Amino acid sequence: MDTVRIKDLPKHVGQQVLVNGWIYNKRTSGKLQFPIIRDGSGYLQCVVSKKEVSPESWDASDRATQESTVRVIGKVVEEARAQGGVEMHVETFELPSLSEPFPISPKEHGTDFLMNHRHLWLRSSKQHAVLRVRNEIEKGCRDFFYDRDFVLIDSPILTANAAEGTSTLFETDYFGEKAYLSQSGQLYLEPAAAAFGKVYCFGPTFRAEKSKTRRHLMEFWMIEPEVAFLEFEGLQELAEEFVEYLVRRALDRCKEELKTLERDVTKLENVKRPFPRITYRDAIELLTGKGMDVKFGDDFGGDEETVIANSFDRPVMISRYPTVIKAFYMQPDPKDPDVVLGLDMIAPEGYGEIIGGSQRIHDHDLLLQRIKEHKLPVEAFQWYLDVRKYGTFPHSGFGMGIERMVAWVSGVPHLRETIPYPRMLNRIYP
Amino acid sequence: MDTVRIKDLPKHVGQQVLVNGWIYNKRTSGKLQFPIIRDGSGYLQCVVSKKEVSPESWDASDRATQESTVRVIGKVVEEARAQGGVEMHVETFELPSLSEPFPISPKEHGTDFLMNHRHLWLRSSKQHAVLRVRNEIEKGCRDFFYDRDFVLIDSPILTANAAEGTSTLFETDYFGEKAYLSQSGQLYLEPAAAAFGKVYCFGPTFRAEKSKTRRHLMEFWMIEPEVAFLEFEGLQELAEEFVEYLVRRALDRCKEELKTLERDVTKLENVKRPFPRITYRDAIELLTGKGMDVKFGDDFGGDEETVIANSFDRPVMISRYPTVIKAFYMQPDPKDPDVVLGLDMIAPEGYGEIIGGSQRIHDHDLLLQRIKEHKLPVEAFQWYLDVRKYGTFPHSGFGMGIERMVAWVSGVPHLRETIPYPRMLNRIYP
Repeated sequence: MDTVRIKDLPKHVGQQVLVNGWIYNKRTSGKLQFPIIRDGSGYLQCVVSKKEVSPESWDASDRATQESTVRVIGKVVEEARAQGGVEMHVETFELPSLSEPFPISPKEHGTDFLMNHRHLWLRSSKQHAVLRVRNEIEKGCRDFFYDRDFVLIDSPILTANAAEGTSTLFETDYFGEKAYLSQSGQLYLEPAAAAFGKVYCFGPTFRAEKSKTRRHLMEFWMIEPEVAFLEFEGLQELAEEFVEYLVRRALDRCKEELKTLERDVTKLENVKRPFPRITYRDAIELLTGKGMDVKFGDDFGGDEETVIANSFDRPVMISRYPTVIKAFYMQPDPKDPDVVLGLDMIAPEGYGEIIGGSQRIHDHDLLLQRIKEHKLPVEAFQWYLDVRKYGTFPHSGFGMGIERMVAWVSGVPHLRETIPYPRMLNRIYP
Repeated sequence: MDTVRIKDLPKHVGQQVLVNGWIYNKRTSGKLQFPIIRDGSGYLQCVVSKKEVSPESWDASDRATQESTVRVIGKVVEEARAQGGVEMHVETFELPSLSEPFPISPKEHGTDFLMNHRHLWLRSSKQHAVLRVRNEIEKGCRDFFYDRDFVLIDSPILTANAAEGTSTLFETDYFGEKAYLSQSGQLYLEPAAAAFGKVYCFGPTFRAEKSKTRRHLMEFWMIEPEVAFLEFEGLQELAEEFVEYLVRRALDRCKEELKTLERDVTKLENVKRPFPRITYRDAIELLTGKGMDVKFGDDFGGDEETVIANSFDRPVMISRYPTVIKAFYMQPDPKDPDVVLGLDMIAPEGYGEIIGGSQRIHDHDLLLQRIKEHKLPVEAFQWYLDVRKYGTFPHSGFGMGIERMVAWVSGVPHLRETIPYPRMLNRIYP
């Protein structure tokens, strides 16, 4: 007999099949029991009738508690009211493992309790749904860039130079030398863009920031494309095409999950190109117009981002930030020398910045000057400067934090639920 | 006018197009110049005729040195002898950036020199080809598991417990606690298998091993599937299906790259299921039959692996290793209590172990006993033991080191060429 995963059961209506899984929930009504079984692919309502199964099967179903492992054989029957449109009329019910009382029940638990039991909390329907959305978005990232002929360049995690200061870096000993955990693959991608034209990296990145907000993790995944001969206008187009694609993909392929999460999908349906584009100078005007006290040269915090985001019905791209508040490698705007060709994309509904990117300086001498102005160690950047010595070229790229993207699409306010095992201040377990 | 990538030029025969790229090579013959341009997607032979272009274009083409950035406009013409089947008859040749003398030329360079210039070496045709094979294999991994309904579970890099000793771990300070860089996501995948049924992780892993062989890197990427209700027989089937798929995919989609690498593809064409399967006891017999001095309980090194591999024409799976030389979590063989249901897959042609996996112990008390026998700290494994308390289930998984797979498929003997920026003993730059 075939072992079938629950999501595939609609293809087996009328057949006798075997399902392996765990008890998600159970209801009893006299001589009928209605266990709901989950197997990671879906939820299956079963009907166990005392007069139709053996005493052993009845007893096993009766004893089965939440999260007990079960092995059920029965007939797949159409049932419009059940999730997935089918249910199982059980013929044999086995209980290979009786669970100890499961610590997580549908009642409310404190955050600390849930985070301490993260390895079990993953089984809850909401956590399950968020991580399935993550799975879909991550695969969407891979497909998007592969289909556009980008080459994956796995940038290193262990890096030799604390190029921009060590204050937020995790440090380790590398056979007698100091090494640091990477905060971005960008510097490694630029030479690779000269080799492959279009490249991206997608891996874990690290910030040792003593920050406890819902928008920060110490370890998070970031996807970073870098494209040779792409200038700022094209970068903005790439960023909005990418975000539109990911949202569309989640809407198309995560219907059940978004329903479980009670996500208002009308807000996501709206995420279509072109996205609104404003300059930093526009943003200052918009904010002061709403009575906020900001001036040219200020960086935007969560409050400012939310006010800007709330002025639009889809993600908004803010460009041309003051040179003084942005990274040393950003290309100056030829029409406005106080600002750089950098952009941030702010998600709607208060989910904050999801993308940051820029055109990079490709002139060797200007880049060298900026490195010196920022008091960075020139010798540590020789290899990075090399990209400007051997056939330099305009190029641009951005980074997207996956957890923020997943949080927005899923509609969960805290990043800790968007990654399987979050690493936060004072949280490195399990 | 359209900017076209070189690989797409065959679709533009007869059209005037613009190509951005770098000089790969150049040949001059009187009033004709034949620069070869690369743009990361392919190589394009150009024909520049003195009498057909402006003096500026002729001069630019004349001055263009290896790796100089060029911008060429011309007509795409069929040319059977050229790579890709087309060449360009140039109308305008621009030289946006003249390269300084490029340090890497077709002549031989020492390994240290090349590794110090890894950021430039990436542009060489062989390195380019290897990393394109890597790109294809990594995407193959993602597609293989996504298409089979596995959920991606990004396991954490920063881990709290040095569960199996700290000798080969990179250590860092985590806000006053000690943390270690992950060597495997397996322990984190097993609880996730209870939540999703089929899961995998694919990320960087770390070994602080003072080892200088061609088969070791300090930082390498590993893909690890873990499947609920999968027993040892099914694990072996999954492993061989996966390897067959990846090899087939590289053969289908990396034809040019494998040609550049002069890979003997007939050896790869042969990689079809079923793979030979032998037990560890069979392997001992095979080795002693060939005069090697090994006995039950010995671990196999590179020499033994090569002798075994050379006895077969495709990857071979060795199973049922002695309990004493394998990890604490491996399920004992019910028919042979001195061995465990673990397997290693050895690639042909001396490329060594590419996969290691096992069925995991799912009995709580047996696992606890093993943890104690191995003198591991029980408290650090409570969460891992929990998987056996709350509805335990048989499950299996394996890990594949991507660099070894890429080395084998590409036919490059040293792992350092299979990852963009290798991390080796005394090598963390660039």
